[in-house]
Amino acid sequence: MENTKYVIGVDFGSDSVRSLVVNCTTGEEVASGVANYKRWMQGLYQDAAQNQFRHHPLDYLEGLEECVREALAKLPPSVAKQVVGIGVDTTGSTPGPVDENGTLLALLDEFKDNPNAMFVLWKDHTAVREAAEINALAKNWGGEDYTKYEGGVYSSEWFWAKILHILRVDEQVREAAYSWVEICDWIPGVLTGTSHPRSLKRSRCAAGHKAMWHEDWDGLPPEEFLTKLDPLLGGLRDRLYQETYTSDEKAGDLSEEWAARLGLQPGIAVAVGAFDAHMGAVGGGVQEHALLKIMGTSTCDVMVASKEELGSTLVGGICGQVNGSVIPDMIGLEAGQSAFGDVYAWFRNLLLWPLEALGEEVGLTEEVRKNMKGKILAKLTEEAEKIDPATTTVVALDWLNGRRTPYADQELKGALVGLTLGTDAPRIFRALVEATAFGAKAIVDRFREEGLTIDEVIAQGGIPGKNPFVMQVTADVLNMPVKVVKSDQSVALGAAIFGAVAAGEFASVYDAKHALQSDYSKVYTPNPTSAERYQALYETYLSLGEMLSDTLRML
Amino acid sequence: MENTKYVIGVDFGSDSVRSLVVNCTTGEEVASGVANYKRWMQGLYQDAAQNQFRHHPLDYLEGLEECVREALAKLPPSVAKQVVGIGVDTTGSTPGPVDENGTLLALLDEFKDNPNAMFVLWKDHTAVREAAEINALAKNWGGEDYTKYEGGVYSSEWFWAKILHILRVDEQVREAAYSWVEICDWIPGVLTGTSHPRSLKRSRCAAGHKAMWHEDWDGLPPEEFLTKLDPLLGGLRDRLYQETYTSDEKAGDLSEEWAARLGLQPGIAVAVGAFDAHMGAVGGGVQEHALLKIMGTSTCDVMVASKEELGSTLVGGICGQVNGSVIPDMIGLEAGQSAFGDVYAWFRNLLLWPLEALGEEVGLTEEVRKNMKGKILAKLTEEAEKIDPATTTVVALDWLNGRRTPYADQELKGALVGLTLGTDAPRIFRALVEATAFGAKAIVDRFREEGLTIDEVIAQGGIPGKNPFVMQVTADVLNMPVKVVKSDQSVALGAAIFGAVAAGEFASVYDAKHALQSDYSKVYTPNPTSAERYQALYETYLSLGEMLSDTLRML
Repeated sequence: MENTKYVIGVDFGSDSVRSLVVNCTTGEEVASGVANYKRWMQGLYQDAAQNQFRHHPLDYLEGLEECVREALAKLPPSVAKQVVGIGVDTTGSTPGPVDENGTLLALLDEFKDNPNAMFVLWKDHTAVREAAEINALAKNWGGEDYTKYEGGVYSSEWFWAKILHILRVDEQVREAAYSWVEICDWIPGVLTGTSHPRSLKRSRCAAGHKAMWHEDWDGLPPEEFLTKLDPLLGGLRDRLYQETYTSDEKAGDLSEEWAARLGLQPGIAVAVGAFDAHMGAVGGGVQEHALLKIMGTSTCDVMVASKEELGSTLVGGICGQVNGSVIPDMIGLEAGQSAFGDVYAWFRNLLLWPLEALGEEVGLTEEVRKNMKGKILAKLTEEAEKIDPATTTVVALDWLNGRRTPYADQELKGALVGLTLGTDAPRIFRALVEATAFGAKAIVDRFREEGLTIDEVIAQGGIPGKNPFVMQVTADVLNMPVKVVKSDQSVALGAAIFGAVAAGEFASVYDAKHALQSDYSKVYTPNPTSAERYQALYETYLSLGEMLSDTLRML
Repeated sequence: MENTKYVIGVDFGSDSVRSLVVNCTTGEEVASGVANYKRWMQGLYQDAAQNQFRHHPLDYLEGLEECVREALAKLPPSVAKQVVGIGVDTTGSTPGPVDENGTLLALLDEFKDNPNAMFVLWKDHTAVREAAEINALAKNWGGEDYTKYEGGVYSSEWFWAKILHILRVDEQVREAAYSWVEICDWIPGVLTGTSHPRSLKRSRCAAGHKAMWHEDWDGLPPEEFLTKLDPLLGGLRDRLYQETYTSDEKAGDLSEEWAARLGLQPGIAVAVGAFDAHMGAVGGGVQEHALLKIMGTSTCDVMVASKEELGSTLVGGICGQVNGSVIPDMIGLEAGQSAFGDVYAWFRNLLLWPLEALGEEVGLTEEVRKNMKGKILAKLTEEAEKIDPATTTVVALDWLNGRRTPYADQELKGALVGLTLGTDAPRIFRALVEATAFGAKAIVDRFREEGLTIDEVIAQGGIPGKNPFVMQVTADVLNMPVKVVKSDQSVALGAAIFGAVAAGEFASVYDAKHALQSDYSKVYTPNPTSAERYQALYETYLSLGEMLSDTLRML
């Protein structure tokens, strides 16, 4: 036991950060911790009506310390000394501005309440116009189309669009921002005490999928392209990066300061960061011909393909294909749905409106309100499951947060079509569940149209273990088996696997994955009758989407 | 005072029946009573998911007695003796089956719980298929198109479709039903003791607007047409009626039995019945070039045009043009929206779902639930009014109960298009309010396309006095002044006016209307800026409707 080594995976999500302590030999998950982002949970720095969502860097740093300490506190004190490596995954693209010392601007006193000086969360859609400009320029400037390895459509959720938007709307931030970092670059930098933005080991995953970085053009898009987009970007390229790193590499050693804050030994390995979906795919056991879906508020869908299988194919309309973004020397392909659980949460919150708006007036206690909130989705699920499909007429479009894949388009919106006076909440919920499954199918179809084989889905994230109804509908709509990853911490597990590789405990990510990846807890098999019915409804979904797209963009 | 004469108007609505005692000289409304339908309020005989809505005849008879007695109880006992006439208006088309004695089948013991033996409420849409068959036959059978004075489209809400549907689905009712009556025919029959179905004085209004009755073809459509539609209809025509009557005529004298039940003098005049919208139009002061809208759960829209103005024009896509259906010797034109307040009520009920489904489980008291239910629409209105239109993206289609005008189509359905994660309940409510106003505009446009002039709207019913926001949006969308009828009992007032004419107190409906009609309490004037913005949004509404119609029918 004294010789047992442990690794820690840290997973920065949208609402909270989780830590997972893993036995480096057996893969056993020995303890975990979670910390909600304090400011975020108070609703600060977000404005849903404007699709503006920002994270304060202190939420990350305080949460990191809290969740690691929480996990370690559950274990004998000796374990902390046996931790040999840390891996970090984060949401993304979630860039934030830093000064020349690598300090996030919102950590400086004069910017502490300025949302533009914070991390621009992946789901923030304030940069719709900038994304459109990037797409227009990339297609028409006469040179290389730098979006081509990112699915051919640049999204408002991504690095350059967000940076350009902030530079345009906030002069103060523009003047103070020396460079920009993704949170997956920044956290390992903080942990290892790497301060200068040019010294950070930048993530291949983030750079390749979101920042148009590619070996073919020697890194980021050239200065000429960027300044043509907007002179405001002039000079920034040189203050960003040229090299990128896969997460089997070490970002550096844990600093004295952060070893003390976390209660770990200084000098242990910190792996280069990457996005949650990509590390999570490894924790969940990604392999060729399986689509790995991390299903939470949104979905991230990840595949790996050998260079031989993919050949020179450019898969259009996805979020990129990047050498080494998931597993070194394989092409990692990313796609995703802009909203999945968020669609259900939206509907829950809609139904909660009277309680929020009138609760006080009618003498509703806070306890009853909270209790109700906690039960709504389970009750909707229970009732939706009972509905005879012949008695419902609603079809939904799931683009309430725009569409990420296929063909990213943040100006699309959701719809509920076919409402009658008999349409009740469970019927709408059912239509929303079906719509999110249809959104999943549209992604599978996009890959298959390019000749890629997908035989099964590996599902992980918050939803698969929680909602069998959603999972069965997804299996029926996809008409494929859906395997559920057993670990409910498989994303953090993935990060821990990279921590183990960076610490030199395994010779390759393959070896580490083989030893440490999660088992599966359940397989959802499609019901042939439902699958057939859903195929017809899916056609309706597609044709509604086609009919309504122009109007949805205009609204 | 001893010589003062009074008349009573009785208005049978969807949820309740109202009585109004009116001073026959001044038009003063001296007392009123209201009785909810007891069985209906318990949710009996209805199935919203199947669009099935039936009224038990006892709900009508008990409610009639209760509401008249309630009104009279508020007055000196002498007044009851000074009542000289009764007018009756009802919903419609709301037909029910009777035996040879004129007894509604549901009043017989063996049918007392059979919804098919009850009145089929106007908004029941179980006869969608039968309406489609009537339309197909009318257009293709090679003879006269009997729908031509009813807008050219026969609705599932109407007489023949409903009768045929019940005859098909219920063999027992089929065998027991000697004839069928509209409630506006039946109630005056009950009050005057007219038992045999052939002796009832049938309403011109109901017959002309809903039963394809017209002088041009000597009454109802011929036997040949009806049996071609379905042999099940064979022989029924002869057991219905040939003559019809306008409501300035007397149906008969109040019977001893009902005089006793109501506390009135036997032998006073009971006017021929008619539909609520048509009598209400008279109470509200209908006149040429004004569209009179009764805005409640649905809307009924009524116009009158001189024979000279209308000429030989057949207005397509409305609910008919009938000589004398509103005012004798003028053409009454009817249109309407299948759901208006019902759209808002649907949304309120959707938002109430968690309270209904989980209330008990989380310890919500019945009082809090009721209190909440009573406040939701007012709060939604308050919040919707504050919304900056630039921050909302939702456009709705208001066809949650199908579409009545223009071009009745019960297979259409509603939609909410343009949803985002920032779309909250007030934003959806606002879109629904706008959509019901767009529905109103589509009706105005239909009349204008046929060359009719509409300069203003006269609004009455439950909504105009209650929701200024809805009324202002309606005025803005229509870009016309909307005058609100002062009396909140103007429909019953209209019935009372006909009671007065039938009693011989006035020489004509014109004279009676002039003396007794309601004043106006308020005029909503369109805001030019909003009107312009809504014109653009209305185009979106129209194009969405066009795009989605085929899909909505199919769902």
